[in-house]
Formats: sequence, structure tokens, C-alpha cells
Amino acid sequence: MNILILGGGGVLGQKLALKLAANPTLKGQAITQVTLADVVDPPKIDAPFPVQTVTCDIADAASVAKCVTAQTDVIYLLAAIVSAHAEEDFDAGMNINLFGTYNVLERCRVLGIVPTVVFSSSIAIYGGEAQDPLGDHSYPNPQTSYGMQKAAGEMLINDYSRKGFIDGRAFRLPTVSVRPGKPNRAASSFMSSILREPLNGQDAICPVEADFLHYYISPRRCVENLVKGAELNAADIGQNRVMQMPGKTWSIAQVIEAMTAVAGTDPAKLIRWDPQPDIKRIVSGWRWDIHADKALRLGLKADDTFEDNIRYYLEDDKHTA
Amino acid sequence: MNILILGGGGVLGQKLALKLAANPTLKGQAITQVTLADVVDPPKIDAPFPVQTVTCDIADAASVAKCVTAQTDVIYLLAAIVSAHAEEDFDAGMNINLFGTYNVLERCRVLGIVPTVVFSSSIAIYGGEAQDPLGDHSYPNPQTSYGMQKAAGEMLINDYSRKGFIDGRAFRLPTVSVRPGKPNRAASSFMSSILREPLNGQDAICPVEADFLHYYISPRRCVENLVKGAELNAADIGQNRVMQMPGKTWSIAQVIEAMTAVAGTDPAKLIRWDPQPDIKRIVSGWRWDIHADKALRLGLKADDTFEDNIRYYLEDDKHTA
Repeated sequence: MNILILGGGGVLGQKLALKLAANPTLKGQAITQVTLADVVDPPKIDAPFPVQTVTCDIADAASVAKCVTAQTDVIYLLAAIVSAHAEEDFDAGMNINLFGTYNVLERCRVLGIVPTVVFSSSIAIYGGEAQDPLGDHSYPNPQTSYGMQKAAGEMLINDYSRKGFIDGRAFRLPTVSVRPGKPNRAASSFMSSILREPLNGQDAICPVEADFLHYYISPRRCVENLVKGAELNAADIGQNRVMQMPGKTWSIAQVIEAMTAVAGTDPAKLIRWDPQPDIKRIVSGWRWDIHADKALRLGLKADDTFEDNIRYYLEDDKHTA
Repeated sequence: MNILILGGGGVLGQKLALKLAANPTLKGQAITQVTLADVVDPPKIDAPFPVQTVTCDIADAASVAKCVTAQTDVIYLLAAIVSAHAEEDFDAGMNINLFGTYNVLERCRVLGIVPTVVFSSSIAIYGGEAQDPLGDHSYPNPQTSYGMQKAAGEMLINDYSRKGFIDGRAFRLPTVSVRPGKPNRAASSFMSSILREPLNGQDAICPVEADFLHYYISPRRCVENLVKGAELNAADIGQNRVMQMPGKTWSIAQVIEAMTAVAGTDPAKLIRWDPQPDIKRIVSGWRWDIHADKALRLGLKADDTFEDNIRYYLEDDKHTA
């Protein structure tokens, strides 16, 4: 089982590689190689199988051709320009999120290898006039270019699968929290930083009100779902390869309460409340009443409580901060 | 009002130009020029304003740059690789239907002209697991590459409009019947030829059963809606620029009865019933329980009876057969 992780230098890409290293089989077969590809050379990880790291710009078809080879069995397509970044830099978002996705799928078609392709879509595809609740078959009505690019990517995954060019599966990821590392250019970045920074004894800014509701998953559970996602039988998924990844809805107040329950009362005191109109404009187009019927039926899971999300951060990531 | 019709050599492009010539204003302003652009030089039409014809391959950004200029006020983006053709030739469909649409929108963005762009989408975006009835906000779940490309085009129209790069409006066209001319490579081509050929004293083949239901519009009414579509106020359309164009659902038996009611009993005798699995496989993924709430509210219209569709063909097109 030869696995390529595009976006292999990112938080999910790295955690996915570590998960595969800890349990080195996929789809019932031994993993023979993992390739971590990203725009900058990704950190290598320790694993019982060979790990290759390569630089790859998916916006460039020639670069993709070097990563996706006749030996590739499974592709995780996690590389993306995130929401606020794609909103500021329209070209970058189009080139990576839309044309990059096309380049990867097209390379698979040309090679004729029909790999399993796991595509990370996003709850940012929902929004606008579409009615709550939202789920697997809701109208994609993105309010950002990032959401549009992901929604178009879903359609490519479906059509390339229907045509037999790939064996695709696309999951609309909830917002991943607590995300380790530094704040990124996702508009949702604060949903991790208001927890992560205080847990590390640092100040954080909360740009929305305490009653702001959002749909979350922990990195640990997300990676478990990505592994499971590759292992699903195509026949069980059916004609439509796109589905919501399970998450749970919490208010800002609830995630802070969870932090306090796990880590005591000090961290929450480090949050400064400072409403920011630009962030609010983007995130208020997002939805929280989201249902993941198909994925739950297929065995993917949400976190049980947000206290778990806090604990996973402390166990898996705090030492890296 | 300087109008560019991409796909100006096609049935709808030509009829739209003739309609504009007969009533040479759009959005309350005099039409100063119409440019008919297509992959082969389009037939010129008589009009009270200058009519330019140009060859343009929208898959080629340089070719698009020659047609879309700083003077362009309104763009009708009707050029497309139709359903069965896009299914056979995946590259052609992607290059024209998806990347061609992108090239046109991108040219508008680079020029900064914010033209009104009227995009022809299709009921082929519906299908698969999505539930009936279908309408403006139904999940696009195309069962053909053509449908996928149109659904992705809708998203581009919405996002480019949201960003202020264009003033877009996209209409999911019902199957246009009775379409004049020769059969084309749309899987729906028989829905015109079983009427058109018999009305001209020629044999025709019906590849589906008499109870096959489908959602139709006449070319005359479709063009009226395309004119109206350009004239709608952006504020009235709202955030989502995509909507179903009104049509009506008829069975094959009903459209043949309508032909008989208008033209007597002879034409129907020229239809040979010959079920064709390839056509049936494509068209059975299409939907007929479609509702055009938004467009109807905005003043677009369906045909009253299919007898009108037959009469319009006899009045507008039979002489060209």
C-alpha cells in the first residue's frame, strides 16, 4: 500500500502520517511507503515503512506528475489555501484549491491507476440562502471563494469517480480544534487559538461573541475518520462520494467551559474579547446545524465531548507548543 | 449596450440575436452592437445595430481576450459541449464547459469591467441520490460530466458575482424543444427530433418509452427568458445568482398528442419506437419534478401548453428545415 499525502507538511497531513506509522496497514494491507508532499519540504516522521518527503506544488501539473506515479495506491488530497487566505488572494485559491485538485485527478486519469483519493472538503461549502439543517445532500452555497473551490472540487471527485478514473471519497471537514501550532490564515483560526494559546499560558483574542455556535472535530478524531474514509468500500459509499464528516456543535462559551473543566480556571482568564467585523462577516456565513448521516452510518465518528478535544490537545500536541 | 453572445452560432445564440434585433434595447438602453462569437464563424443576422461575427474558442484565454473587451456590457455565455458529447470526450467538455467558463469570467475580472453575464446552466446538474422535487436550492448531483461542468460553472458565476468581478445570473435551462436544425450530440436530442422530423415529413426514432417524463421549454420562450434574465436587477436576484429557468413537464405521449392536435395525425405515424440503452442510461439520471420558484417570482415564464411549442416551431423554424 503506497500512500501519497498531498499537504503532508500540514497539521492533518503530519498527524495522519503518524497515525499510519503507529498502525502500518491500510485497507487490510501493509503500508509499503508513505510520501509526504507539500509546497515546502515536509518534516519527516519515524515509521516502520519508508517515508519519502518531496516538495510539490499541486498548481503545477508537472510537479504533480512527479508525486503521483504508477505505484501510487492511495492519495490524501489535503493541500489547500485556507479560507481567509483564499479570500484575500483569489488567484492562489483558484490555482491550488480548484486547478490543483484538477491537476491531481487528471494525473490519475492519464496514468490509468484508479487510486483511492480522499479529498478534504469543508463545511465552508454551506451557507447563504440554503436552509438549515444542512447535511450530505444540502445545496452548496458557499460565501467564500474557498468554499466555492471546495464545492467545485467535490463535483470533480464525484465525476472522476463516476467515470472510473479514481475511487474517490470527499469529506466536508468540520473546523478542526484544538489545532496545534501557530494561527493560520483560516478565518476559523481563532477557534483553536482561544484554547491553544491560553493552555500554553499565552494571551488570545476572541473576535466573536460567547454564544457563537460552530461545528467542530478534534484533530485526533479527524485523522481517525480520514483513515476510515480510505478504507470504506466504494459500494457502501454509493454513487455520491461526498459526505459530511461527523462533528459536534458547541458555542464559544461551551468550548471555554470544557477547557476550564479539564485545565482549571486560569486559561480562560487569558482570553481577551475583541469583536472583529472582518472575521465575523466571514464566519457568520458559515453554518452550525449540520448533520453527517451518511458518514455516521458508514462508521465515522464525532468527538464525544469538547473536553476530549482539550485532552487530546494536551496529550498529543501541547509538548510541541 | 454592447452585447457579446458566446455560442452565437448556436440555435439559442442566433434566436437571441434575432430577438434583440426585433426589439433593439436591453436594460432600458439602446443596443449599440451585438457580437456573435463561436468556434466557427457564426451566420450574420439583419439588425438595426452593427452585428459583428467572430470566431472564438473559449477554451483559449487569448481567443476570449479578443472577444471580451473594455466595451463589453453584457455577455451571454451560451457556448457549451453538450451532454452526450461531453460524456464521450471528457477533455472537450472540461476545456469548454469548465475552463472556458473560467476563461471568460477571468477575462472580466482582469479587465475590471463588471459586465452582466448570463450563463446557461442545465437541468443536467440534478440527479442521483438527490430527492425530488428539485429546484433552485437543490443539491447538484449530476450524472454526467456535462452536468458536473455546468454545476461547477454555476459556482464560479456565484463567486465571481459575490466578489464583484461580474454581475452574473445563471439559469438552469430545461430541455429546449422543438429545437430546429439537425440532431445534435445532446442525449436529449431525440426530444426535438421525434417532433421536428415528422413535422417535416421525415422518419424519426424514439429511444425511450411513451411514458418518459421530461421538463421542457420552447426556444421562443427560452430566449424571452434570457432577455429578461439580463434585465433583472441584481438586488432582486439576491446573493445566489443561480436559478431554475421555468419549464413544464410532459410525457413523450403528451408531446406527440400536442403535435397531433396542431398538425394532424400523419406526423406521429413517422415515429419508430426503438429503445436505446445508451440514451436511456443517460436520460434516466435526469429529473422532471423541477420547480422554478425564484425565476417565476422574478417574472420569467414557462410555456402554457406543449401545443405552443409545436406552433412556435411551425412559425419560427419549419421554413429553415
